Amino acid sequence: MSRILLTGAGGFLGSRALAALLAAGHEVHAVGRGGPQGQTLTRTQGAAGDGQLTWHRVDLTDPRATGTLVADVQAEHLLHMAWYVEHGLYWQAPENLTWVEATLQLLRGFVAAGGRRAVMAGTCAEYEWSRERYPESAPLEPSTLYGVAKDATRRVAERFAANQEIEFAWGRIFTPYGPGEVEGRLLPSVILPLLAGEPVPAPDGANVRDLMYADDVARAFTAILESDVQGAVNVGSGQPTSIRELIELTAEAVGRPELVQWGALPRREGEPAELVADVARLEREVGFAAQVTLTEGIAHTVSWWREQRS
Amino acid sequence: MSRILLTGAGGFLGSRALAALLAAGHEVHAVGRGGPQGQTLTRTQGAAGDGQLTWHRVDLTDPRATGTLVADVQAEHLLHMAWYVEHGLYWQAPENLTWVEATLQLLRGFVAAGGRRAVMAGTCAEYEWSRERYPESAPLEPSTLYGVAKDATRRVAERFAANQEIEFAWGRIFTPYGPGEVEGRLLPSVILPLLAGEPVPAPDGANVRDLMYADDVARAFTAILESDVQGAVNVGSGQPTSIRELIELTAEAVGRPELVQWGALPRREGEPAELVADVARLEREVGFAAQVTLTEGIAHTVSWWREQRS
Repeated sequence: MSRILLTGAGGFLGSRALAALLAAGHEVHAVGRGGPQGQTLTRTQGAAGDGQLTWHRVDLTDPRATGTLVADVQAEHLLHMAWYVEHGLYWQAPENLTWVEATLQLLRGFVAAGGRRAVMAGTCAEYEWSRERYPESAPLEPSTLYGVAKDATRRVAERFAANQEIEFAWGRIFTPYGPGEVEGRLLPSVILPLLAGEPVPAPDGANVRDLMYADDVARAFTAILESDVQGAVNVGSGQPTSIRELIELTAEAVGRPELVQWGALPRREGEPAELVADVARLEREVGFAAQVTLTEGIAHTVSWWREQRS
Repeated sequence: MSRILLTGAGGFLGSRALAALLAAGHEVHAVGRGGPQGQTLTRTQGAAGDGQLTWHRVDLTDPRATGTLVADVQAEHLLHMAWYVEHGLYWQAPENLTWVEATLQLLRGFVAAGGRRAVMAGTCAEYEWSRERYPESAPLEPSTLYGVAKDATRRVAERFAANQEIEFAWGRIFTPYGPGEVEGRLLPSVILPLLAGEPVPAPDGANVRDLMYADDVARAFTAILESDVQGAVNVGSGQPTSIRELIELTAEAVGRPELVQWGALPRREGEPAELVADVARLEREVGFAAQVTLTEGIAHTVSWWREQRS
């Protein structure tokens, strides 16, 4: 059991990372903007024994609050998943700068308080979108402020960690999906009308993505945190899936494939045709492979939305 | 006349930029950690008329103080020269992270307050030190935390500025010298013992640098600020000078060449053999060329130290 500081613990991926870390028996200090007022102590029974949770309601963009947090917790490990991710806005939002600042400030404080290993969430948007498959060594030339900000953070954090002689790894997330996504994202925007019996305008769906079920993303980060792997690691399934295939599988899972109107939506501008992770590092060095197939993951997601609506 | 927010105004280069901006008739809001308590208003007669100075004693690493400053000043132009530059420490110091944070926070505030054009001080340490002469397009692969932090700041700031539709330029400084350098740096460490009649252990001096007199560096930044040039611009003389030649000229200027003990010091590890700017952008697009020759600059510098010691 290690003492782990987990940020973004209330988020789509962070909440699952919290569950995975507790199941593995760690002492987790979870940070979210919301959640329980003050500190709450919870013991949870996990596969590896008793995980222990302390919740911290802290705004990490407030340097004083962050300073107090890291000094109080004195964590050995940091899993930093918090960032500004407001759907439709985060690609170009000024808040990306705020999160560069908040992340570096957090890392400085973590190291000053005796931290030994930091793992952070990066993104496939750091890569130059010019190829089909991306090893971690692919050229970095982000086309969005979000990608630039993540990439710049990694550059500084990685060098700082090396200077300070702490371990550092950076997981580049491809395309996560699963229950609880915000409604504007692709899967909910297909599932919700289908469940209501409404037609769904869809693009031609030729773009290819690397889908990974959110629980798998969280387990991958837990595995990276528990490993001694350093540097950038792609976090994806390694499996190419066309958007058309994804929508087809989803419509079949709902049982209303006839409601999809192919080609009724244009492709979004500025998006790459193909974006698939080379997951050799994740599988061989970290020793993690995705556990949930696309069909299973879509079935879970559709079931979850069905329950929300019933 | 423009309203300019100048940071690092108490520093080696910033103090000269302040003089150059006032001489050009601008309304300068100068920021330093030290300097006059509160605000002082000074009118100075310059070549282009009445420059106007307001001094702000602000610690830019305090986000609240920075927020108040930019909101109060509402500058159209920003010339950001402040950074952590403690001699012997700044290459690898954690404070580089603090200054990434402070710089992005400053830029966000400047833009929010209506700023239109930002120019910042970068460094030749952003380049991969693998060649002799560096155009701005040379590969960026910094070997120090200082270089990484400056490079990362530029990446984020430049993209943010483009998104916000403000102008942005980044001056990569090569090797400045002149009166007032801290005593640990090369010229004072040669001049001071020579003035005292003491022997000066020197390296073989084969490394080649791009020396630029500090007043020229400051004038170059003023010219960049007054231009509409965007992106990275090298700030150097474009002239290769070996360290041996520099020490020889200096010893001659003092009149004690016989005191130099060549080869008594080893070369410093990790330093590139040759580091010379390609100054085509500075000369052709900005329209600035260095005005002070190396012989003149060394003479001024030796005179200044002579006065300090007399």
